Amino acid sequence: MGVRGEGVRREFLVVSSTATTTGGFSLKDLPGSAGRMDIVCRCVNSAFFLSHDIRRDTRLWLLLLGEPNPPILIRFEGSELRYLSPDERSAASLISKALGRQNITEHEILSTPGVYIRKGDMKDVLEGCGDGTDIIYLVETGEWIREIEMGDKLIFVLGDHMGLGEEYERLLADACARNVSVGQKSLHVDHCMIVVHNELDIRRTLSKAKLSPVPRNSVSQDLKVEI
Amino acid sequence: MGVRGEGVRREFLVVSSTATTTGGFSLKDLPGSAGRMDIVCRCVNSAFFLSHDIRRDTRLWLLLLGEPNPPILIRFEGSELRYLSPDERSAASLISKALGRQNITEHEILSTPGVYIRKGDMKDVLEGCGDGTDIIYLVETGEWIREIEMGDKLIFVLGDHMGLGEEYERLLADACARNVSVGQKSLHVDHCMIVVHNELDIRRTLSKAKLSPVPRNSVSQDLKVEI
Repeated sequence: MGVRGEGVRREFLVVSSTATTTGGFSLKDLPGSAGRMDIVCRCVNSAFFLSHDIRRDTRLWLLLLGEPNPPILIRFEGSELRYLSPDERSAASLISKALGRQNITEHEILSTPGVYIRKGDMKDVLEGCGDGTDIIYLVETGEWIREIEMGDKLIFVLGDHMGLGEEYERLLADACARNVSVGQKSLHVDHCMIVVHNELDIRRTLSKAKLSPVPRNSVSQDLKVEI
Repeated sequence: MGVRGEGVRREFLVVSSTATTTGGFSLKDLPGSAGRMDIVCRCVNSAFFLSHDIRRDTRLWLLLLGEPNPPILIRFEGSELRYLSPDERSAASLISKALGRQNITEHEILSTPGVYIRKGDMKDVLEGCGDGTDIIYLVETGEWIREIEMGDKLIFVLGDHMGLGEEYERLLADACARNVSVGQKSLHVDHCMIVVHNELDIRRTLSKAKLSPVPRNSVSQDLKVEI
């Protein structure tokens, strides 16, 4: 890849408090044998899959905090991905292969096309974000996503079913992250990502049609834009 | 359960053109061995899972058209479901158990709690919808979901990656279904369902706060409603 961030418009950072940090886990029992690796795998699906296409402008960071070797960062790069199918086992197989690499250090290495691994934590991801990147922490109590302005370069940070915890939340506050919500109901992290993608897709459509980035009632009908 | 429809506010009918209609398929290879059963399983997840909760007001119909015994209808009833976890294998296991039942006829039988099976087709589902049910066919070229009025009883009909085909589309048109879109991008069927749930959740929140059912910019901030 070129300079980090080139062509990337959407980043997600998913923190899994329990997902295992060693390879060779059982693909037959992702929830039980690998610390809710099933959740992580569904996030890979949500980040990248369109019907008959891949979201090439998207990057996904997985921060895995389970035993025996935390913290581990795995980076999925939409523009380079191959060998990924939508099912959980497919993502699990790529993650297992990455975790099975020898000598995982703070120097990032390529595991399979579009999949990179290193030792690293949330601060490494945040520090690597370019100037002008909007850092958005998705949490039920935040501002409603449909009503906020967002820039062109975005990173969305999401915790799993256990939540992020105070330390990470303080780190995000220090990095001037904004708290944003997709709705009042508490959703699975992979479902939140779908809602975020949809909101950004809608905004891009409206923006191309030179309409307000924040959708309003009847705008598209009035102007015969098929959303 | 009581009268059909009691307590149910959201129904989904997912048509799988290829998913197998016999039990005993391999849980290790859902995409390959069972006619894209993986897609069907992700729809079960999308229909029902909230973080730490189940959507009890939701019903999911799966219409399976693969060999050797199509058409088969499987009904998942949110208010009665047990033994369902979010991972694909869990849904696959319940579906395999239902398909493995002896003597599947047009008379619906209970397989496991909240999971029913019968021989049947789309017309059976549509005919069983109560008066005043809005039938909504989700398709890219439809009206934008954020801008339409919807009633209290809704059934959303979705095709898989192969599309519905002319015959089913004609049946839907005859039933006065409305064509509705969640956005211009072509999404996986399970992802569409997430966007639909989110839209309905938002509307319910706004409606409880006695705000317009069609969200407008700044409404919630002005009135200090946490969406």
